[in-house]
Amino acid sequence: MRVLWVALDWGTTNLSAYVIGKDNQILQRLQSDKGMSQLDPEKFEPALLDGIGPWLRNDEITPVIACGMIGAQQGWLEAPYAVAPCLPVTAESVVTVPTKDPRISVQIVPGVCQRAPDDVMRGEETQIAGYLADHHGFGGVFCLPGKHSKWVRVADGQIRNFTTFMTGEMFGLLSNQSILRHCVGGSEWDDAAFVKSVEAAVRDPAGLTAKLFSLRPQALLNGTPSGTLKATLSGFLIGTELAAARQIWDRRDIVIVGDRENARLYKTALATLGKAALTYDSDSAIVQGLRPIAELAHCEFQVT
Amino acid sequence: MRVLWVALDWGTTNLSAYVIGKDNQILQRLQSDKGMSQLDPEKFEPALLDGIGPWLRNDEITPVIACGMIGAQQGWLEAPYAVAPCLPVTAESVVTVPTKDPRISVQIVPGVCQRAPDDVMRGEETQIAGYLADHHGFGGVFCLPGKHSKWVRVADGQIRNFTTFMTGEMFGLLSNQSILRHCVGGSEWDDAAFVKSVEAAVRDPAGLTAKLFSLRPQALLNGTPSGTLKATLSGFLIGTELAAARQIWDRRDIVIVGDRENARLYKTALATLGKAALTYDSDSAIVQGLRPIAELAHCEFQVT
Repeated sequence: MRVLWVALDWGTTNLSAYVIGKDNQILQRLQSDKGMSQLDPEKFEPALLDGIGPWLRNDEITPVIACGMIGAQQGWLEAPYAVAPCLPVTAESVVTVPTKDPRISVQIVPGVCQRAPDDVMRGEETQIAGYLADHHGFGGVFCLPGKHSKWVRVADGQIRNFTTFMTGEMFGLLSNQSILRHCVGGSEWDDAAFVKSVEAAVRDPAGLTAKLFSLRPQALLNGTPSGTLKATLSGFLIGTELAAARQIWDRRDIVIVGDRENARLYKTALATLGKAALTYDSDSAIVQGLRPIAELAHCEFQVT
Repeated sequence: MRVLWVALDWGTTNLSAYVIGKDNQILQRLQSDKGMSQLDPEKFEPALLDGIGPWLRNDEITPVIACGMIGAQQGWLEAPYAVAPCLPVTAESVVTVPTKDPRISVQIVPGVCQRAPDDVMRGEETQIAGYLADHHGFGGVFCLPGKHSKWVRVADGQIRNFTTFMTGEMFGLLSNQSILRHCVGGSEWDDAAFVKSVEAAVRDPAGLTAKLFSLRPQALLNGTPSGTLKATLSGFLIGTELAAARQIWDRRDIVIVGDRENARLYKTALATLGKAALTYDSDSAIVQGLRPIAELAHCEFQVT
């Protein structure tokens, strides 16, 4: 099967590569822990070739289009932020990375920043572009859950403004590194506890840091199971986020772009507040978002 | 100088030992990282003797009175919680630890728990007892800042109810382990930024997790100095705590019992909200709180 181009979501801690064939079919999805922060500058190209090397052909140049933290100042090559309000991805703002291997041409899509209030994204703009490519004229709010979840208002094809919450990273820190790690371990999960804690957080979002500690006495005094407490921790954090983001999503259409589990949790949490939301797969969104850049690159290479 | 007894504040990650002489003078304060969680059960006594060994005499038994996580289920010997409302420390509830060294007699003061809402403390009850020993008849609220800061309502010498906030632990996790570690390092500090962020948090305590992320774009886009961002991080967390705890402290006298730096921050933050608070040194509070137990122990040993 012939590879036409490669899409990369290259973040701080992970690299996802999507090998794309005819009709934009994903031939393979490669996953590695060679995130931007783990690599010295001269290691980016070898890390990339480690993954996609077997797919490359010697008789042509394969376009590799990347988004994410790889375009940060400390990344492979800085792709300076577009400033909102702006289109999520444009061909003019893409930067081309000098590479040694003649079989690839690497381009990086920049992130988007916002001033007053200051905020930044790298990668999410591509997911938004991907959804919009499939749904021309959509106006509303994107919820992009993850380590740093983002709520992004979109109108007329443009990112108007956005807000980032540390929800996912806090869940990771609290469940793996804090005193709560003793009581939220394991793979169990309790959906009812999740819903209950979303409701509790929405009733009193200011009380988050006291709610978080409360998991410990619940374990110590009542022996509450870890699956219940893990779902409660998640519900407290996501519920607080929904409460704080309410003025962004209230009375607007919401599309959640994320992995299956995150999308399910946010959809459930929003439903708890009586709000419907669509979900859209983040892998498809990345590929659709980078595809126009790849098609431009491909035209060039076909011509030469 | 003759040691009369030893006070221990033995927490999860640290051990503080206060060697006490005549007139309850602190002859030495020993500090070690041999916290409860770092030690196997058979290591507690050696860890204690490592520190205080040089002070012990062969011709008499020195009472060692401890509070803190050392009395937890995973500690040296469990001292079951007293249940609030209750006196902070009573002689009847103290447990005696079997020890091998004939020169010491070790007793542990239990913590206090609360049901519905569930909460727990170990160590703070002793600090409260210490302040009350010096200030009979005090009624009001104690603020005990730290890794897990506590707000404790006291009336008629009793702990009535309390709430714990994860403020200190979250500050540690966020400044050392999260993405924010890149922008809040160093020893600089900015008092004006602290006050400003306390005010911002009090205006919108529900927005904490978005406020936390906002430090990163401030560093990336504006080059805001790390001392300013560190103080801002602290102010966001403490301000959110003060907002959530307002119904506890509003219209009541507040005593902050903590180390000098924490006490100063909470006093400043409360002053920002127009609320005065007294401060009281936590070392003195520990020693004063354990002293009645030591005196009882000493009487016994003097008699035998």
